[in-house]
Amino acid sequence: MFTGNDFLALVAEGLPQTRGTDLAVADWQPGEVTLRLPFNEASIRPGGTISGPTLFSLADIALYGVVLSRIGHVELAVTTNLNINFLRRPEPADLLARARLLKLGTRLAVGEVAIWRDAVDGGPDRAVAHATGTYSIPPGGREG
Amino acid sequence: MFTGNDFLALVAEGLPQTRGTDLAVADWQPGEVTLRLPFNEASIRPGGTISGPTLFSLADIALYGVVLSRIGHVELAVTTNLNINFLRRPEPADLLARARLLKLGTRLAVGEVAIWRDAVDGGPDRAVAHATGTYSIPPGGREG
Amino acid sequence: MFTGNDFLALVAEGLPQTRGTDLAVADWQPGEVTLRLPFNEASIRPGGTISGPTLFSLADIALYGVVLSRIGHVELAVTTNLNINFLRRPEPADLLARARLLKLGTRLAVGEVAIWRDAVDGGPDRAVAHATGTYSIPPGGREG
Amino acid sequence: MFTGNDFLALVAEGLPQTRGTDLAVADWQPGEVTLRLPFNEASIRPGGTISGPTLFSLADIALYGVVLSRIGHVELAVTTNLNINFLRRPEPADLLARARLLKLGTRLAVGEVAIWRDAVDGGPDRAVAHATGTYSIPPGGREG
Repeated sequence: MFTGNDFLALVAEGLPQTRGTDLAVADWQPGEVTLRLPFNEASIRPGGTISGPTLFSLADIALYGVVLSRIGHVELAVTTNLNINFLRRPEPADLLARARLLKLGTRLAVGEVAIWRDAVDGGPDRAVAHATGTYSIPPGGREG
Repeated sequence: MFTGNDFLALVAEGLPQTRGTDLAVADWQPGEVTLRLPFNEASIRPGGTISGPTLFSLADIALYGVVLSRIGHVELAVTTNLNINFLRRPEPADLLARARLLKLGTRLAVGEVAIWRDAVDGGPDRAVAHATGTYSIPPGGREG
Repeated sequence: MFTGNDFLALVAEGLPQTRGTDLAVADWQPGEVTLRLPFNEASIRPGGTISGPTLFSLADIALYGVVLSRIGHVELAVTTNLNINFLRRPEPADLLARARLLKLGTRLAVGEVAIWRDAVDGGPDRAVAHATGTYSIPPGGREG
Repeated sequence: MFTGNDFLALVAEGLPQTRGTDLAVADWQPGEVTLRLPFNEASIRPGGTISGPTLFSLADIALYGVVLSRIGHVELAVTTNLNINFLRRPEPADLLARARLLKLGTRLAVGEVAIWRDAVDGGPDRAVAHATGTYSIPPGGREG
C-alpha cells in the first residue's frame, strides 16, 4: 500500500520544485487525494497573486499523487498532457488541491484537479484553477 | 428565468446537429444541468461504438446549457475552447451529460461536463468522456 | 503504403458523420495531410456559421489521417484527447484542414491541425479553428 | 513599439520564476517570438530530465511575449487557459521556445508554442513540448 507519507518522501527526493515548500497531504484515499501548499513568498508575483507556474506545478503533483494512490510507486509514469484553466485571481493564501481519477487504464490514467484557497474560497466550487491531465503508465508498471 | 424547456426550444431551432435526436433535459438547476441523449443508430460507428463527434456535440451543448442556466438567453455566447478526454469505449446506450460551472465572469464562463451511459455506467464516476470548455460572453450579455 | 485514397475509403466505411459530405484529400504526405470539406448546408447554424461539431469532426478526421499516413491502417487507434480553439466566426465556405504530426511514439501519437476557409482566409495563418489531439496506438499496431 | 528588451525587463521585474535563469530573446518579430532558456541545474529532476513546471513556465512566458509583441505592455493581460503536450523526454540542454499568434482579438488572444533543445533537436519539428494558450485582454488594453 502506497501512503501519503510514501508520496511526500518520493516528491521530496524527485521533484525539485517542491523544495522548501512544506507541501503536505491533507487527505489521501485511493483515487482521491488532497494536497496542501502553504503560503510561500517565493511563489508570489509582483501585484500580489500566486504565479501560474506555482498553480501548474501543484496541479501536476496532485494528479501524479492520485495516480500513484491507485497503482503504487511507478518510476516512469509521466505526464503526457495537462490542460489548465485559470479561473480567479489567486491572492496569497494556503492552497488546497483535490485530485480525482477519471480513468485508470493499463496504459493511460486521466484525472482532474481543483485548486482553491483554504481560508478564502471555502471549497472546490470556488476554485482558482482547474486542470485535467493524462499520465502514461509504462508496460508492467501497474502493481494492482 | 431561463428554463430547461426554453433551452430545448433554443437548441431545436439553432443547433442542426440535434435534429431528430430526442435530446432531453434530465435535470436543470442554475449552475448544474444534466441532459439525456437517447440512443440513436445514426451516431454509431461500425464496430458499434458511439462516435467522437456525437460525444463532443453533447458535451458542447451541455456546457452551453449550464452557461445559459445562469445568464439566460445570450444569442452570441460562443465556445472559444473545448478540451475533451475520451475515457472508455462507449458502447451504444442512452447517454447522460452533467455540466457544472467552474466560473462565471462578466466576459468568460468555464464549465466541466461528464458523459456516462445511463443504464451501464451508473454515474459520472464511470464516465466515457469528460470535457472542460470556455465560453465568451459578449459585452452587456449577462442578464443577471 | 497507405494512400489518401485508402484513407477516404476507410473513412467512408467507418465514420458515419462524413456521409454525404464529399470530403476529399487535398494533399497527402507521410506526416502532413490536408483535407478539404466542401461547403454543405447541413453544417450551417442559423445565423449562418459553420457549427462547432462540424469543425471538431473535421479536426478529428484530419488528425486520424495524419497518424495513419505514417503508421498505415490500424483499426484500433483511437482519439484519447482533443483540445480545440475556435478562433474566428466561420462563415460558410469550403474548409481546408492541414494536420501535422508533433510526435509518433510506439504507444501515443500527437498532432496539430489548423482549419481555414479556402477562398476566404488564404492559409492556416488565418485559421477559424486550431486543435491538438492525442491518439492511442494499440500494442503491435504500428506497421512501420 | 514594444521590443524584446522591453519584454525581458518586464519579465525580470514581474515573473519570479525567471530569476537567475538567464532567459534571453533569440528572435522578436511582432506575432512570432523565440526565447532561449539556457541550461540550469535547478530545473533538472533526478534521473536527469528537465521538469514539467520548467517547460510549462517557459511556454507560458513565450506565449505572453508573443501577445505583447503585438499589443504592447498590457499589465493585466492574464493567461486563462494553457494546454501542454509533453512529447519527448527532455534531457538537459539549452531550450528554445518559438511562439506564434493564432488569433488576436479585442478580448482574447490565442497562441501556440513549440519548445525544443537547441543543440539536440535541431528545430520545432522535433519538439519536447507543444502548448496552446489563451490570454484575456482587459477592456481598453490594446494599444494597436
